[in-house]
Amino acid sequence: MMEHEESRDRVIIEGVKPEIDGGRFPIKRIIGDKVVVEADIFADGHDVLSAALLYRKEGDRKWSEVPMDFLVNDRWRGSFVVSELGRYHYTFIAWVDRFKTWRQGMVKKVEAKQDVSVDFLVGAQLVEEASQRARKRDAGNMQKWAESLRSNQVSPSAKAKLALGGRLTAIMTKYPDGRFAVTYPRELVVVVDREKACFSTWYEMFPRSCASEPGRYGTFKDCEMRLPYISEMGFDVLYFPPIHPIGYTSRKGKNNTPTAKPDDPGTPWAIGSEEGGHKAVHPQLGTLDDFRKFIGKAREYGIEVALDLAFQCSPDHPYVKEHPEWFRWRPDGTVQYAENPPKKYQDIYPLEFEAENWRELWEELRSVVLFWIEQGVRIFRVDNPHTKPFAFWEWLINEVKADYPDLIFLSEAFTRPKVMYQLAKLGFNQSYTYFTWRNVKWELTQYFTELTQTDVGEFFRHNLWPNTPDILNDYLRDGGRPAFMTRLVLAGTLGANYGIYGPAFELCENRRRDKESEEYLNSEKYELKQWDIKSPESLKDFIARVNHIRRENPALQSDLSLRFHSVDNDSLICYSKRTEDLSNVILVIVNLDYRYKQAGWVDLSLEELGLDRGKSYKVHDLLADATYRWQGSRNYVELDPQRIPAHIFRIHQGITKSRD
Amino acid sequence: MMEHEESRDRVIIEGVKPEIDGGRFPIKRIIGDKVVVEADIFADGHDVLSAALLYRKEGDRKWSEVPMDFLVNDRWRGSFVVSELGRYHYTFIAWVDRFKTWRQGMVKKVEAKQDVSVDFLVGAQLVEEASQRARKRDAGNMQKWAESLRSNQVSPSAKAKLALGGRLTAIMTKYPDGRFAVTYPRELVVVVDREKACFSTWYEMFPRSCASEPGRYGTFKDCEMRLPYISEMGFDVLYFPPIHPIGYTSRKGKNNTPTAKPDDPGTPWAIGSEEGGHKAVHPQLGTLDDFRKFIGKAREYGIEVALDLAFQCSPDHPYVKEHPEWFRWRPDGTVQYAENPPKKYQDIYPLEFEAENWRELWEELRSVVLFWIEQGVRIFRVDNPHTKPFAFWEWLINEVKADYPDLIFLSEAFTRPKVMYQLAKLGFNQSYTYFTWRNVKWELTQYFTELTQTDVGEFFRHNLWPNTPDILNDYLRDGGRPAFMTRLVLAGTLGANYGIYGPAFELCENRRRDKESEEYLNSEKYELKQWDIKSPESLKDFIARVNHIRRENPALQSDLSLRFHSVDNDSLICYSKRTEDLSNVILVIVNLDYRYKQAGWVDLSLEELGLDRGKSYKVHDLLADATYRWQGSRNYVELDPQRIPAHIFRIHQGITKSRD
Repeated sequence: MMEHEESRDRVIIEGVKPEIDGGRFPIKRIIGDKVVVEADIFADGHDVLSAALLYRKEGDRKWSEVPMDFLVNDRWRGSFVVSELGRYHYTFIAWVDRFKTWRQGMVKKVEAKQDVSVDFLVGAQLVEEASQRARKRDAGNMQKWAESLRSNQVSPSAKAKLALGGRLTAIMTKYPDGRFAVTYPRELVVVVDREKACFSTWYEMFPRSCASEPGRYGTFKDCEMRLPYISEMGFDVLYFPPIHPIGYTSRKGKNNTPTAKPDDPGTPWAIGSEEGGHKAVHPQLGTLDDFRKFIGKAREYGIEVALDLAFQCSPDHPYVKEHPEWFRWRPDGTVQYAENPPKKYQDIYPLEFEAENWRELWEELRSVVLFWIEQGVRIFRVDNPHTKPFAFWEWLINEVKADYPDLIFLSEAFTRPKVMYQLAKLGFNQSYTYFTWRNVKWELTQYFTELTQTDVGEFFRHNLWPNTPDILNDYLRDGGRPAFMTRLVLAGTLGANYGIYGPAFELCENRRRDKESEEYLNSEKYELKQWDIKSPESLKDFIARVNHIRRENPALQSDLSLRFHSVDNDSLICYSKRTEDLSNVILVIVNLDYRYKQAGWVDLSLEELGLDRGKSYKVHDLLADATYRWQGSRNYVELDPQRIPAHIFRIHQGITKSRD
Repeated sequence: MMEHEESRDRVIIEGVKPEIDGGRFPIKRIIGDKVVVEADIFADGHDVLSAALLYRKEGDRKWSEVPMDFLVNDRWRGSFVVSELGRYHYTFIAWVDRFKTWRQGMVKKVEAKQDVSVDFLVGAQLVEEASQRARKRDAGNMQKWAESLRSNQVSPSAKAKLALGGRLTAIMTKYPDGRFAVTYPRELVVVVDREKACFSTWYEMFPRSCASEPGRYGTFKDCEMRLPYISEMGFDVLYFPPIHPIGYTSRKGKNNTPTAKPDDPGTPWAIGSEEGGHKAVHPQLGTLDDFRKFIGKAREYGIEVALDLAFQCSPDHPYVKEHPEWFRWRPDGTVQYAENPPKKYQDIYPLEFEAENWRELWEELRSVVLFWIEQGVRIFRVDNPHTKPFAFWEWLINEVKADYPDLIFLSEAFTRPKVMYQLAKLGFNQSYTYFTWRNVKWELTQYFTELTQTDVGEFFRHNLWPNTPDILNDYLRDGGRPAFMTRLVLAGTLGANYGIYGPAFELCENRRRDKESEEYLNSEKYELKQWDIKSPESLKDFIARVNHIRRENPALQSDLSLRFHSVDNDSLICYSKRTEDLSNVILVIVNLDYRYKQAGWVDLSLEELGLDRGKSYKVHDLLADATYRWQGSRNYVELDPQRIPAHIFRIHQGITKSRD
């Protein structure tokens, strides 16, 4: 049976939101965010309670205390601002407030003109008790007040004035009776990331395909030449597939053929050769120094370089010889190569995390991350994290973020939903999603409602990719240029974080290797490419426009305000995002049909948009730079995929304001 | 940062259902129930898992283990039957199953006619390792099989047959590799009550109003005469308001007047006088011995007697003198009487649970419960539990139920929802509800969906009361006899537990004291009553019929199968209950309008009722004993409140069967 050490405690604190899995996992915020938390707080009987939210930076010993507000139905709310990177803790304290209870009774009785002479005496006792807890100066006043409440010399009306006055309440609030205060049994955690964890615009590119002449292996220096182009399009993260030496054993040939020709470069994910492993740079890309220089150059363009963490080895990786115990050897002396059914990676050995010396393996992998941090990298895209143990990632991310809280880890876990979410819970700051395969209205609506309107939004930050080097989906293959525009607008407005794999994307590359897979024809995973980035067909300017709109409109820089609005046409999808203060409200309407012009009536939730039912308002299409005057919730839209398949409206509320 | 003692564990167990507040509170079942539990169980990678549900009776050291079944989307399910009263614990264990993983790979490769020679060797190793864990007899076989898988003498097809055969799988399942098995960190609890906790039919009666002659104080002997009447109506719990001596100080007069006349009997809830306190019987009701005899007599009629636990005192209660420290004295030497705003109880002192010697108070109150248990009482209706600390109830109920697991505590907490639910979570076995004030379709639907289709159903068992001595609601007042019939059917079919306050109910007493309150005119809380139970207007036979239907139909004996069906008329409400095996399916339709005949089309969810869309079926109205043949989901109904305001249909499925 349970123990009751001190069972005069009467307050219950429960139903806390946000709280992930009973406090097992932190919630995520970015610096400067207001963390709003709610809890059910109540006690037996009819006494009045007080409650406070406690918070502190991890490592600090002292809690800050903010009073919580009672909402309705025993629900309380409080908030605090996270002003530093790292981890904050928060919890709650609440108590039966005898003074407030007494004061509430006084108010009622005084109003009802009931006799309150005994109540004055009770009040005097409460004030006197509180004075024992007070600072000397306050204590003196309090004792005087207690005397007045008791005194026969003071008139009842003067006593009532004192009892209900603001000064007494203020001082009594300062010295609450904490004897039976109840503290919530758990400390909950907020991980505070930098802004880019929440709002980032990614461009993925194979550095070896950046050479100016066909057939030459591109270098970091070639990549420098590409920076103005990337910057003009408005990207702020440039992500490179692995830049390490590539193995020779079982190297893949063009189009994933099982045997490579002598000049086939191999896939960058088959990491490691005699030239080095995860801490080395592929000699044909340049030197480590070149890489560091490139990072600096990119920074001048406002671009951060993200590296790929692919914890796996080519059969030629130095680890295979130095640490054979980190691989699972079969009785015939071979190692089973990696598989992600139906994909086979004969050129890749997985690491064995069930090894006896797993601790050394963990330490080594951490040293890899620290190595690249020392080179200036702060963003990592993690390859297939779902094929390594959860406990490893939780340890790794928390260990390195303790020293480098500005780190961002993007989880590339194209796997089952619970696994995907678990990785986000345990520490990944951004995550790839199923967006790549969500193309029709109902599935987009359902999926993004789940991502933004449930607890998922507290720990899972989506990063939307319409394509990747592994995935050219049916929609892009079949729809061509209008489909690429549609998917770009969706990614860039449904996701404050999004990215494209270029130049394949902006050049609308939509040729597949075969019917069965989603692989690109002549994928640059297996060969060097030469892209015609100056092609007049390029979506470069359109992308630049969308990214410009994202930068200019804070509503598009976070995701939790996302709301869908009805349209009476299933080919049209309509949604909005807004800032908390409604100073920036964006309404997006996209034609999902890349073939035909579609039209329909949107039915807006005006309240959500902060609009007045009676007044007209201005919608400014930031894509086409056209302005319309709308009225009420129902409005007509028409979108032609052959021109621009979307509206990105900024809503200007209030006629007076927009005239200014 | 977190510790990772053994971080080769790879399995995650989360998302457990049922689990109340992260395991803080037990779920509730009755004896013989199957406890079905689900969890999300998954690991990194693509390995196959095994999972088991562990359970044990509290106090037992050994766990029983049941394998869990994989459903879909990483969801697993298992179940066990609770066959004894008391508390059971359950938790989960799961592990990466190397053998199953290997076997699954074998199946695929054999089907694809791939080379599996290395796989045989891997399998041999797994079998050999398992043989180290096996009993001697099994170990021998296993070693032989391992040798066969390795042997060059055995043909590949024979090896494949062995590898994929049932015998090897069976024996390998017996000796799993538990090295990295993960146990769920919490033990969850099920409280197993007897059947009556879930299915009971209550009758509340003032024993002092049972005298055969007007003006005489009724006795337990008089109550005996009433037993056949109560039994004929089909009630199985007879609940008495407090039977203790009643105080004289500030005793209430008729209709709650603040001063009593000499012959006013006072309210039974003003407990205690010089004649005794909570362990005494009011002398005018009889002796303790009479009470024990009455309990025995009632048992002969299949009726259990429930007592009222009202932990409060009249100013004359012996506690006031013996334990003045159990009351909160004001500076003027008085005790503030009890209030439940706007109600005032000048004749009642609350107990002070914040007293310094609260432990003694708790012990004393437990001794009160034990005293009545010794007299043979096993059901307690607890008066206003929400005005005493939660910790007290949790301790009290768990303490006494440890020795008497057949106890049933009904919580009379007409208060805010979270407080009401908290009391249920911490141990009350049944609870009063807001049913008393839910009279129209949308609010009944919403409320009972919350009670039965959410986690609430796991811990909160509703007991529905259309009236109580404190509450004569507007609906009954205005609607008279048809309204009483309607509310009886709703209570008796929406609630497997329900009760009425009689004979006021069956005699359709609907006169109020005044317009403001819900009090009865000349309430028997303050005076002796003489009820004309033989009145031809009595609903006795109707009640008997409804209670008979409840007894005959197991579907009505629990609540979690409740589902609402559409009707195109807001005055008609339609819902069903069913047994798990569909052998008993009940469909209820009630006319909520006590004035006019109402008709409409019901639109049944056929799947819910186990009905075939194409076939007709028979519905037998158990109230009117009329049978109809229905077809499909849409059927016409018509109900006249002046005759019978409800259908209680038993659905007979399948034409063939119903012909038999």
